[in-house]
Amino acid sequence: MAKLKVGLCGLGYWGKNLFRALSGNPDIQLVAVADARADIRDGLAVSHPHIIPYSDATDLIADPEIEAVVLATPVAFHYAQAKAALDRGKHVMVEKPMCTTSAEADDLVARADLYGLTLMADHTFLFHPAVLKLGELVRSGELGKVSYFDSQRINLGLFQPDVNVLWDLAPHDLSIIDYLFGGEPVHIEASGYCHVNPGFPDIAYLTFHYSTSMVAHLNLSWMSPVKVRHIAVGGSDKMVVWDDLNREEPLKIYDSGITTHPRQDREIILPSYRIGSVTSPRLSGGEPLVAVVEHFRQVIVGKTKARTDGRLGRRIVRTLERAQAALDLSLRQAQSSMPAVSSPSAAAA
Amino acid sequence: MAKLKVGLCGLGYWGKNLFRALSGNPDIQLVAVADARADIRDGLAVSHPHIIPYSDATDLIADPEIEAVVLATPVAFHYAQAKAALDRGKHVMVEKPMCTTSAEADDLVARADLYGLTLMADHTFLFHPAVLKLGELVRSGELGKVSYFDSQRINLGLFQPDVNVLWDLAPHDLSIIDYLFGGEPVHIEASGYCHVNPGFPDIAYLTFHYSTSMVAHLNLSWMSPVKVRHIAVGGSDKMVVWDDLNREEPLKIYDSGITTHPRQDREIILPSYRIGSVTSPRLSGGEPLVAVVEHFRQVIVGKTKARTDGRLGRRIVRTLERAQAALDLSLRQAQSSMPAVSSPSAAAA
Amino acid sequence: MAKLKVGLCGLGYWGKNLFRALSGNPDIQLVAVADARADIRDGLAVSHPHIIPYSDATDLIADPEIEAVVLATPVAFHYAQAKAALDRGKHVMVEKPMCTTSAEADDLVARADLYGLTLMADHTFLFHPAVLKLGELVRSGELGKVSYFDSQRINLGLFQPDVNVLWDLAPHDLSIIDYLFGGEPVHIEASGYCHVNPGFPDIAYLTFHYSTSMVAHLNLSWMSPVKVRHIAVGGSDKMVVWDDLNREEPLKIYDSGITTHPRQDREIILPSYRIGSVTSPRLSGGEPLVAVVEHFRQVIVGKTKARTDGRLGRRIVRTLERAQAALDLSLRQAQSSMPAVSSPSAAAA
Amino acid sequence: MAKLKVGLCGLGYWGKNLFRALSGNPDIQLVAVADARADIRDGLAVSHPHIIPYSDATDLIADPEIEAVVLATPVAFHYAQAKAALDRGKHVMVEKPMCTTSAEADDLVARADLYGLTLMADHTFLFHPAVLKLGELVRSGELGKVSYFDSQRINLGLFQPDVNVLWDLAPHDLSIIDYLFGGEPVHIEASGYCHVNPGFPDIAYLTFHYSTSMVAHLNLSWMSPVKVRHIAVGGSDKMVVWDDLNREEPLKIYDSGITTHPRQDREIILPSYRIGSVTSPRLSGGEPLVAVVEHFRQVIVGKTKARTDGRLGRRIVRTLERAQAALDLSLRQAQSSMPAVSSPSAAAA
Repeated sequence: MAKLKVGLCGLGYWGKNLFRALSGNPDIQLVAVADARADIRDGLAVSHPHIIPYSDATDLIADPEIEAVVLATPVAFHYAQAKAALDRGKHVMVEKPMCTTSAEADDLVARADLYGLTLMADHTFLFHPAVLKLGELVRSGELGKVSYFDSQRINLGLFQPDVNVLWDLAPHDLSIIDYLFGGEPVHIEASGYCHVNPGFPDIAYLTFHYSTSMVAHLNLSWMSPVKVRHIAVGGSDKMVVWDDLNREEPLKIYDSGITTHPRQDREIILPSYRIGSVTSPRLSGGEPLVAVVEHFRQVIVGKTKARTDGRLGRRIVRTLERAQAALDLSLRQAQSSMPAVSSPSAAAA
Repeated sequence: MAKLKVGLCGLGYWGKNLFRALSGNPDIQLVAVADARADIRDGLAVSHPHIIPYSDATDLIADPEIEAVVLATPVAFHYAQAKAALDRGKHVMVEKPMCTTSAEADDLVARADLYGLTLMADHTFLFHPAVLKLGELVRSGELGKVSYFDSQRINLGLFQPDVNVLWDLAPHDLSIIDYLFGGEPVHIEASGYCHVNPGFPDIAYLTFHYSTSMVAHLNLSWMSPVKVRHIAVGGSDKMVVWDDLNREEPLKIYDSGITTHPRQDREIILPSYRIGSVTSPRLSGGEPLVAVVEHFRQVIVGKTKARTDGRLGRRIVRTLERAQAALDLSLRQAQSSMPAVSSPSAAAA
Repeated sequence: MAKLKVGLCGLGYWGKNLFRALSGNPDIQLVAVADARADIRDGLAVSHPHIIPYSDATDLIADPEIEAVVLATPVAFHYAQAKAALDRGKHVMVEKPMCTTSAEADDLVARADLYGLTLMADHTFLFHPAVLKLGELVRSGELGKVSYFDSQRINLGLFQPDVNVLWDLAPHDLSIIDYLFGGEPVHIEASGYCHVNPGFPDIAYLTFHYSTSMVAHLNLSWMSPVKVRHIAVGGSDKMVVWDDLNREEPLKIYDSGITTHPRQDREIILPSYRIGSVTSPRLSGGEPLVAVVEHFRQVIVGKTKARTDGRLGRRIVRTLERAQAALDLSLRQAQSSMPAVSSPSAAAA
Repeated sequence: MAKLKVGLCGLGYWGKNLFRALSGNPDIQLVAVADARADIRDGLAVSHPHIIPYSDATDLIADPEIEAVVLATPVAFHYAQAKAALDRGKHVMVEKPMCTTSAEADDLVARADLYGLTLMADHTFLFHPAVLKLGELVRSGELGKVSYFDSQRINLGLFQPDVNVLWDLAPHDLSIIDYLFGGEPVHIEASGYCHVNPGFPDIAYLTFHYSTSMVAHLNLSWMSPVKVRHIAVGGSDKMVVWDDLNREEPLKIYDSGITTHPRQDREIILPSYRIGSVTSPRLSGGEPLVAVVEHFRQVIVGKTKARTDGRLGRRIVRTLERAQAALDLSLRQAQSSMPAVSSPSAAAA
């Protein structure tokens, strides 16, 4: 079987990881890489002389030898580059978020459908052993009826010009929620704060309401030097906590639940809490990014259906777009409630 | 010096703790206790024959021997009982929240001022060694400019008919914020969910905006069988995390901060993170409730000014009232966005 | 049914706990208490006027009304007091260690047998929920073949004149090992150090060899300001770790084991390690000391057989005696290997 | 400046790490590698065509181009290979333990001295940021008088034929003790157990007595599927705990100590414990192995004195040899105390 010929655009933080995963896949040939920085290309020419170093992603996309393109460029470029690649008949995997508007996402999905090409969004977390285990727990009914999904995702921020904390961090949680429960939120509330750059939130709090009785809350921040990656999923029978920074016991399943027994003689329902044992399952499976790259290949050669296809990418972008609108509204309201500060010039007048 | 003669109304969960603290104070004489439950009073008659057991708080409040009344009754009764006690010339300490509306709070504060009596709200956390230490850190400027206060307070709910999760748990955080930073929020946003009782939130997420550039977020829940009491306060120089369930190292001070250096040549400001050592100071000091009771006594006898006076109680109630309004609005909006469910009768028609 | 009439000798640290447990038992009447300190007796006369305060344990033991005596006096007094009580026809529970020599223990066991009286050693840990759970795990075969028992018991020392770190801390582990596995060690090795008082070890390391292929190691210390109470029990199928200071998950069962498959073609056997999930069972059960006291009563009234009878007490004392001999030998050897320090006077000569 | 020309013998677990560190050093040229396995050499020929792949270490050592040899071969080969390399005029770094007897160590040290060549033992831990910090704390006197060093080192065992648990794990602790305190133990006690291979301990407990009043205890095991790497160093003023598996706060300094105040009126000295804050310093510094390799180069080119020279390697081997003698004695005594088991044939007779 011939190797899949792939080109990679962008060798930033994540692009380097993709480079390693693509190079290491025995059934993929990494033909070319595009990066605007000359020093990066020069280094590559020495260490990997057989890989073509393009300075412009457009040229890589135009290279007729390349069958599939992986985009790890800034978000603002995703749409144009993905469209160009699809129009040239190439399969595409786009770093998350897939693009910046749902209109762009609609267009990409439509083109991929029209051409019969693979369009994938790189939501790597859906290949993470902990998320796969969460999926099992939800689908098997082991958790019972899920009432909340609660995430704290507190990272040091990269502060790229085109991605605020919402677009940087929420895609992780939204893709996990999509994988676990399906469906898009029926109502979104948001608040946040811009400490560093005006009009550019570095803290965001989001509440997503679903048509089931589940509520999801995201606490996203770039403002803490201490990293937190903590997700709790609470069901009527069990509760799961995933602490991604706990090496020894990242996932803990609490055999504890809440049950409600309505009684006629009481004004309100008193739930009863059951507290049981805690289990930390052994998670198996390799590096998620390695699995993503192999999955992309298998989808292209027709061996499997994409777990993170363009439609998933679109659902995430659509939700981000709505969340951004809610956040914008909240920021304006908060701003207008602040006490007026008289400007120096006004004071002088 | 004569002992202060105190009466205690209510021997529920917290009332029992107050009973122990009042009985143990060498300068206080616990004269009487009121509780509607006969078995509680009968037990008391055996173990503490010298304490008068009233079945009705009204009678206790009317007892001329009593100089000061402590109210640990359900919130709905606080206002009427506190007013009656003040009108009878007695000092009053009221369990938090002090009452149910800011109008009630205004009235109680005015009466206490008029009569020259002590009115205190029992915000016990302001006597907790960890909060006192947090206060030192904030006031000394050690944290630098504080940008956020983030609290997760996840308890098993008592589900009393007159207190939802907001009124049950937020008073703790609001009193701590008031103690640390002063001021009332200029803007409040809220969302939540009612899993168990319709119209009665058991999960609430709150964002408070202050006139300083600080934002406070509260994640309150009764829906988790796993308890969490976690507060993070982030400043430009240091960050503090208080995990109230960590016996060994409850308070951790991260000598880590974020600084911002605007540059003309960049579209956005890139902050720099400094990561340093972590210190867990030894906290000293006795049981907070014992300190509260002694503080109440010292305020009455004129030795000190109240740290948790009626005005603090009023500020908390005022903020709760505004947060409830925001929460009500959010619940209505979320409700109206839910897909309509045809009722069985409608379907039959 | 008449209440059991009990007398308690000694109101030190542990005696106070026994006082509380005895007073709280509805089927026991605490008739008298003996303590040499007048202020302790005076306080008792005020708070518990119905309890007779003896200044001398001998008088309490002689009190004809008392049916059973609990000894929480210094270890050096245990033997004489227990013997006197048995000779007076009274049941006896002795704080651990039961006495100071195996000869004393033989005598006490023989007297209790002769008189048909209950002799119990207060090894409270055998009523601890975690130890009961450990017992289940060992007896059910869930752990597989146990190869080691490893304990770290690092406490702040009380430094009583008649108990060194071995006699203070090892009884806990020895009673747990006895409960879990039975049998006495066939060989004992010890080493230690005397930092504070010459000839009086404050650190001791012990290795116990059993006729099964189990080895037990105890790391005992009074020299650390940080407390550790950590026991690991390793079997071929599972391993259990008990951290007595971990409130949330004190017991962790690792579904991990070691198996050995001898092969002819290899010089040595290579074991294979299996790493599985971790479970922290919910431990139920009340306060161990309350259970001990009720157990003592039930043994006396004939309802059950003693879990911690005089024979267990004797096995522990016997092992302590042998361990002390090994420790003495080691201390002498270590001492003699130290470089000689010439005394100033000798140097002057 | 010309690059240092180095040859590496052995590409096992640790050899691969050394390969990476040697290849990555810009001032070192990795000229040749020796490994008996053809597949390893074949793979190397493809990925690193410029490195000579020898099948026999003897040939590599004889290669005149090579200036320095790094030995990551099985311990049994260290002496002969190091001797051969020194005799050929090459500098040598030997994986720990440096050799198997102190006679071998004496010989290697003498040859290196005679030839004026660098002989280094690869005790990588002495380049670990946590050990460097421990060294600062000890040398600055911050800990006060150190009374104990306590290590638990519980790893999954590799069970090589020529290294038991003592020779595999104790070199780490012994090198750290040597670095922190200097000096060799005046008395050694040991016990252990052979669960898997007869006569080949897989658990060892060691007590080292030093001429200062410090005692060191090592709890070494291959029998646990749960890994532990925990060292506590206790001084009169402070105590340090290093948990090498704790990513967030590996080193904790407890500002807690024990002081003793002899009094004439007491039979024994009662120490007083002081409990203060806990600090986790930020550890800086790169990967220890990278530092070791660069250190080896700098020692050879005369820029610095070796931190882990042949004399250190010899001290460790000498102590291991003595510890092994103590362990052998203990194993024989334990064996002889075991109850005799009658063989089946004997029983049939």
